Amino acid sequence: MNEFELIRKLTDGVALSDDVKVGPGDDCAVLDLGVEGTDFLFKTDAVVQSVHFNDEATPEQIGHKAIGRVLSDIAAMGGRPMHALVTLGLAADFDVAVVEGIYRGMRRLGDRFGVGVVGGETTSSPGGAFLSIAMLGRVPAGRALLRSGAKEGDAVFVTGELGGSLGGRHLEFEPRIEEASWLRENFSPHAMIDLSDGLAGDLKHILRASGCAAEIFGDAVPVSRAAKLRAREGSAAKPALLAALTDGEDFELLFTLPARDAVCLLDAWKPRFPDVRLGCVGKVLAGRGLKIRTETGVRELSDDGYLHFQ
Amino acid sequence: MNEFELIRKLTDGVALSDDVKVGPGDDCAVLDLGVEGTDFLFKTDAVVQSVHFNDEATPEQIGHKAIGRVLSDIAAMGGRPMHALVTLGLAADFDVAVVEGIYRGMRRLGDRFGVGVVGGETTSSPGGAFLSIAMLGRVPAGRALLRSGAKEGDAVFVTGELGGSLGGRHLEFEPRIEEASWLRENFSPHAMIDLSDGLAGDLKHILRASGCAAEIFGDAVPVSRAAKLRAREGSAAKPALLAALTDGEDFELLFTLPARDAVCLLDAWKPRFPDVRLGCVGKVLAGRGLKIRTETGVRELSDDGYLHFQ
Repeated sequence: MNEFELIRKLTDGVALSDDVKVGPGDDCAVLDLGVEGTDFLFKTDAVVQSVHFNDEATPEQIGHKAIGRVLSDIAAMGGRPMHALVTLGLAADFDVAVVEGIYRGMRRLGDRFGVGVVGGETTSSPGGAFLSIAMLGRVPAGRALLRSGAKEGDAVFVTGELGGSLGGRHLEFEPRIEEASWLRENFSPHAMIDLSDGLAGDLKHILRASGCAAEIFGDAVPVSRAAKLRAREGSAAKPALLAALTDGEDFELLFTLPARDAVCLLDAWKPRFPDVRLGCVGKVLAGRGLKIRTETGVRELSDDGYLHFQ
Repeated sequence: MNEFELIRKLTDGVALSDDVKVGPGDDCAVLDLGVEGTDFLFKTDAVVQSVHFNDEATPEQIGHKAIGRVLSDIAAMGGRPMHALVTLGLAADFDVAVVEGIYRGMRRLGDRFGVGVVGGETTSSPGGAFLSIAMLGRVPAGRALLRSGAKEGDAVFVTGELGGSLGGRHLEFEPRIEEASWLRENFSPHAMIDLSDGLAGDLKHILRASGCAAEIFGDAVPVSRAAKLRAREGSAAKPALLAALTDGEDFELLFTLPARDAVCLLDAWKPRFPDVRLGCVGKVLAGRGLKIRTETGVRELSDDGYLHFQ
């Protein structure tokens, strides 16, 4: 049983109160707290030593990543972040300068989006450091962008360039808060998610939630320079397209909207976000499953996509 | 530098937005989210394997403790809990039945207070399991009970019996949500905190925040049966009163209110909460510091209270 199946098993069929508009299973919970015109977004996530960062990461980068991941989840709903809380698990012999660096990294990124750290706990953690962040955000009522709205005939878009993030970008990525709000306000995407598991895995989350299939255009997938460089490191290296599909931790936006809006979107995007690439990478189909089309034909990307793609 | 000094150093002097009524330093952050008549409480906390639970704890107890600690923080503000999120750090070879048990324990306690788990993440955690909980609660606007309101002349009260919690009660304690709301509604305590560090340590938190001193009446401190039994385990055992003052993890309420209300409170409490002991354990004084009065005299409880008390 993988992580996603486990969480589904644990949260399926649990009754939630009427003020919970979206419960487990999307990037954030969506809550009606009684403010006319506003829904609130609620999210928690953690980074763990040796899993999400290692000894090469600076403390500032660890703080940046911890808060950036949750900002990216708020972005994935088309929301604006508001307040954050931090729980820091530390070895008994922790270095105060390291903790200060982590807070500096959190603050620097949070400040740029108007997010204050309104509270914190520390606890000892003999097995390794971790940072858990909880965040509140907001979105106009009923306008949160869910995973479940993709429709047959939608075009699939992705921001940025994918793959090879673990080479460094995962510690310095830019949460797409502005881009996501702009998309919500101007194009009302049918479905949106942020890329944490990789294009193939995260598109499958959208398809499962929406009850659709999709085809990815292999040639259109924006492959990062890091993934391309790594692909040249010998015959055992991961092919660049595969890296872009499966590496994960890109923290870019993946969304779908009616194909008829695609050209208009691309035209409007360029002057608004000249430094962020936006590409149409596929289309939503009826049925089930995820296919990829490349010059050698169309292949199914099944749940153990890696092997089938090889 | 201890945990409290570190957090103060990290959070002191940070500008917070106008909608943050209480930032770092109390049991919860207090937020004005735009609902007339209501403030919101926001809190996160974690339990860590080998720190907050060990292999003798059942999965249900681990879940109970994780969510119970945060419920206790909501109670400490006089609030009502609303929604919870969970981040679960798991070893790679985690047992699904254990995770299900943890969720069962969280649900069972949460359900009793109307708290739903509205989302969850899992992550691998090679160094040991942890559970981080984020919670939203509410309290009538301007009525959150802070640490900072104690005044000279207040009586100091504590619920329940203290000490020896690590013998078992820390895994099964009852968050004092009902008691705290009743206190807020009927007696408006000047200051309140939940007991996680022990009566001496947590009373010092109140005194520091309120700019007061206090004296504890040693004979009046309600010592748990567990602490008394352990004190009889030989000459090296921790004296029972010291255990009640310093063991921690009691998750009872500690609060102050005008001494003139003390008798009225005790009279009203008994029929309302017949199964929960309530005791007056001291008084708030002008000045600085915390003293304890026992049959052998009055002694200062300094920051390294344990040694001075011995």
